[in-house]
Amino acid sequence: MNGAERLVRTLLDEGVDTCFTNPGTSEMHFVAALDRVEGMRCVLGLFEGVVTGAADAYYRMAGRPACTLLHLGPGLGNGLANLHNARKAGSGIVNIVGDHALPHLALDAPLTSDIEGVARPMSHWVRTLQSADEVATGAREAVRAALRPPGQVATLVLPADCAWTDETHANGLAAASDAAAPGVARSGPDRRRAAARRAADPAAVDAAARLLAAGEPTLVLLGGVAAMAESLELAGRIAARTGCQLMTEFYVPRLQRGAGRVSPPRLPYAVDAAVAALAPFRNIVLVGATEPVSFFAYPGKPGRLAPPDCRFLRLAGSGDDLLGALTALAEATDSVQVAPVGVAELQRPQLPDGPMTLEGIAQVIAALLPEQAIVIDEAVSSGRALGPPTAGALPHDWLSVMGGSIGFGLPAAVGAAIAAPGRKVLALEGDGSAMYTIQALWTMAREGLDVTVLLFANRAYRILQGEYAGVGAGRPGPRADRMLRLDEPAIDFVGLARSLGVEGLRATNLRELAAGLGQGLASPGPFLVEAVL
Amino acid sequence: MNGAERLVRTLLDEGVDTCFTNPGTSEMHFVAALDRVEGMRCVLGLFEGVVTGAADAYYRMAGRPACTLLHLGPGLGNGLANLHNARKAGSGIVNIVGDHALPHLALDAPLTSDIEGVARPMSHWVRTLQSADEVATGAREAVRAALRPPGQVATLVLPADCAWTDETHANGLAAASDAAAPGVARSGPDRRRAAARRAADPAAVDAAARLLAAGEPTLVLLGGVAAMAESLELAGRIAARTGCQLMTEFYVPRLQRGAGRVSPPRLPYAVDAAVAALAPFRNIVLVGATEPVSFFAYPGKPGRLAPPDCRFLRLAGSGDDLLGALTALAEATDSVQVAPVGVAELQRPQLPDGPMTLEGIAQVIAALLPEQAIVIDEAVSSGRALGPPTAGALPHDWLSVMGGSIGFGLPAAVGAAIAAPGRKVLALEGDGSAMYTIQALWTMAREGLDVTVLLFANRAYRILQGEYAGVGAGRPGPRADRMLRLDEPAIDFVGLARSLGVEGLRATNLRELAAGLGQGLASPGPFLVEAVL
Repeated sequence: MNGAERLVRTLLDEGVDTCFTNPGTSEMHFVAALDRVEGMRCVLGLFEGVVTGAADAYYRMAGRPACTLLHLGPGLGNGLANLHNARKAGSGIVNIVGDHALPHLALDAPLTSDIEGVARPMSHWVRTLQSADEVATGAREAVRAALRPPGQVATLVLPADCAWTDETHANGLAAASDAAAPGVARSGPDRRRAAARRAADPAAVDAAARLLAAGEPTLVLLGGVAAMAESLELAGRIAARTGCQLMTEFYVPRLQRGAGRVSPPRLPYAVDAAVAALAPFRNIVLVGATEPVSFFAYPGKPGRLAPPDCRFLRLAGSGDDLLGALTALAEATDSVQVAPVGVAELQRPQLPDGPMTLEGIAQVIAALLPEQAIVIDEAVSSGRALGPPTAGALPHDWLSVMGGSIGFGLPAAVGAAIAAPGRKVLALEGDGSAMYTIQALWTMAREGLDVTVLLFANRAYRILQGEYAGVGAGRPGPRADRMLRLDEPAIDFVGLARSLGVEGLRATNLRELAAGLGQGLASPGPFLVEAVL
Repeated sequence: MNGAERLVRTLLDEGVDTCFTNPGTSEMHFVAALDRVEGMRCVLGLFEGVVTGAADAYYRMAGRPACTLLHLGPGLGNGLANLHNARKAGSGIVNIVGDHALPHLALDAPLTSDIEGVARPMSHWVRTLQSADEVATGAREAVRAALRPPGQVATLVLPADCAWTDETHANGLAAASDAAAPGVARSGPDRRRAAARRAADPAAVDAAARLLAAGEPTLVLLGGVAAMAESLELAGRIAARTGCQLMTEFYVPRLQRGAGRVSPPRLPYAVDAAVAALAPFRNIVLVGATEPVSFFAYPGKPGRLAPPDCRFLRLAGSGDDLLGALTALAEATDSVQVAPVGVAELQRPQLPDGPMTLEGIAQVIAALLPEQAIVIDEAVSSGRALGPPTAGALPHDWLSVMGGSIGFGLPAAVGAAIAAPGRKVLALEGDGSAMYTIQALWTMAREGLDVTVLLFANRAYRILQGEYAGVGAGRPGPRADRMLRLDEPAIDFVGLARSLGVEGLRATNLRELAAGLGQGLASPGPFLVEAVL
């Protein structure tokens, strides 16, 4: 068996059965192995940012890593921005990056580059294979690294000759002895155990319970998987019993929200608003969250958002068992049987009419969002207004751009749709952001993915128009202004989507928006609605 | 004066007056400075690969660097693939990469990343500024690094507070003393001297002259700027006198060719063909070229393409004065007055009719190519057939993807058009390659660039369909085959171009192609012709 086939078999054996791919010559043996081995779903992207962004959302929805297949240093480079997001999200991904055959590297052919160097800034784990015999253990280690809680980016560099060479007999023996080695498990329950999250620290639970009992103004700040419904409900019970307040971080990888769920407010993005929101608190209990800091620095404004005398207590970190920690805290505070506070009531507003406004768009979404929808939020400046009015929509998941690197939304919609068949994906996408990875629309069409894209066409980098003043640069003059506007020419997103195989409609008022979004959500495949703001 | 304004002024002072940009919050003060300082042309790209690819081609045509403006690690990451090409091309680029304000870095906000780590694999020179006072010297050093022959990728990381803080008085003094320091020149002729190429080594010239006089079968292999017309003509004279053969490397950054110019054959891409082409030679004289190696490794095939007993003589390296070296060699071989061999005769074929073939497409190009056109070649599998039939077209420049990282073509067309106003740019672009940086079309529309795109729609990664067999993987089965085909759905490139503001036509036979290409070449702005193969 050659290294490529061993790699595919090992990945499958370790539970990795989805591969987002943009291959090149050095990856052809991996591609060839797909025809000899059943069970690996391969999804082609026309640009590597599609591939890595899809893998991020896949992990968030499936709870297990997909692999990517990328072509040497430049291909990996194209995937870095969304690997950055995945890294900040705690999403497990196994990158397979092809390289030249090992003896070819010394010849410095045009595509030669320092692949490990490209990988390292966005990877938790990097390894370059040196022979076909290393493929099995290398792949297993990569999957285990990806599964380390909350999830890590693991990059395995596969030189072409390690893929095309057959394993030696010695490797069979090595693989067998590896399987028997203590602490190294091959598959099944042992694999899950290897990825188990660290249990709550009883001392931290005890300290948090005492703090909450003391009655000082205290915030419980929730991040990571503490934003899943079961954890939120426990937090709501604790808040009901102890009087503490709840908030989620501005970005969480997967927020379960909607009618019937505890829906804490979100820490604001803008510095002044965040400082005001945190001002009342003497203590902040961190549950999978970190100390609140501003997204960017602004002259004369604080980077740390909590009051200077605020004390922090870390109940559990993002890789710990957050549900367990909250369960223990609920028990310690005698909150288990208490009805939670902050439960969102079902609110399905009437479909509005009239000119296009963000408030009206939010009403349309709240009215039409199907149950168990997955919302991808990369609407940037438009997106922040959409949260509160949709809190009472039917229960849904809400995925954010964790690393702040735009070009996440459309690829993430691909990954979420593949990870969760049967659920509708709604991608809320800024026009500026969409253009970084617009190629994702083609993959949606090819795979027939159940994605509706709501494209906010304000024809500007609107966020930057705001940030410009925020960083103290004053008002843009004509040359600066031109760098922030996307209206010359205005992009025809409906035509763009159609050229890539995705149908769509343009909406210039709320009635058209409701009709377009209704059509998209009712159709089983991809659809794009361009909302002209 | 704040650091941002100092940066813009210093760049202008050093002769850098074009900025390809995709800015974010951390770069807003740089953008603001553009309104206060005259003279910097800013060109917005909707994706960073457009920005860096444009800067590569700009350098090849203008002979001086542009700067880029990129947003933190992820923005730089998106630009890496085309920086890889620029690095292999020897193109000078000054990357300005914004970062968080220095005190903000410790807070690990979402967009924090190891920017130097991202930069290093594709940069020759990397520096992070630590204060506004360092901006002037940092920028000057960056430009000089970019100018080091043949040209280098220099990355200057600009923390936001170094941009928004005012310089101190001490800096004015430091800048003055720096200007007076020996070996450090501020502008004008001194700057050009700093970038002068190393003169030819007389011993190497002498050795090459003796070798050529010995009469053994000898190849002179030309790379880098030795592919410019004046150097090629000298090589043609030397060949006429000494009987040596000439060839250019498979990729050269800028090949000047067409009627009246010495047009040596190109070293073939395919290993077997390249080995056969080099088999006759006992000696290879390298002029700005390196030992020929295969692009990829293939099982059982050599990586080194010349015969094992072939001897190499390096006349001059890619950063040396290649024209001077060839001049010296022409003098040493008494070739200066000899008529050159291999001069292409003018051949403007009749416009062909009939079904779409690569041979026919080449005829159409040869017939219609305007004088002094700049051809960008990223047609990949389709492109190789186009060289020989167009050798007798009107004189033109031909730019190749030096690092083999695709997604170069459309951005390069942007950069070439901006560097060389008044010259027509013809981008020969594969459909697979086009999709990596398709956003470049919008910049062409916005800037009204005189670019005609000839899009080869074979609706496959045709190169990979060939490489698949080449690496010994046999014939693709159904799953592998699906990873190499782009026909489900077929991309409507005319609709795609139109959605981004670029008009176009689809051609399904040679008559339509001639009409479409004629219309594009006759129009002053961007135009796309989709040739369905």
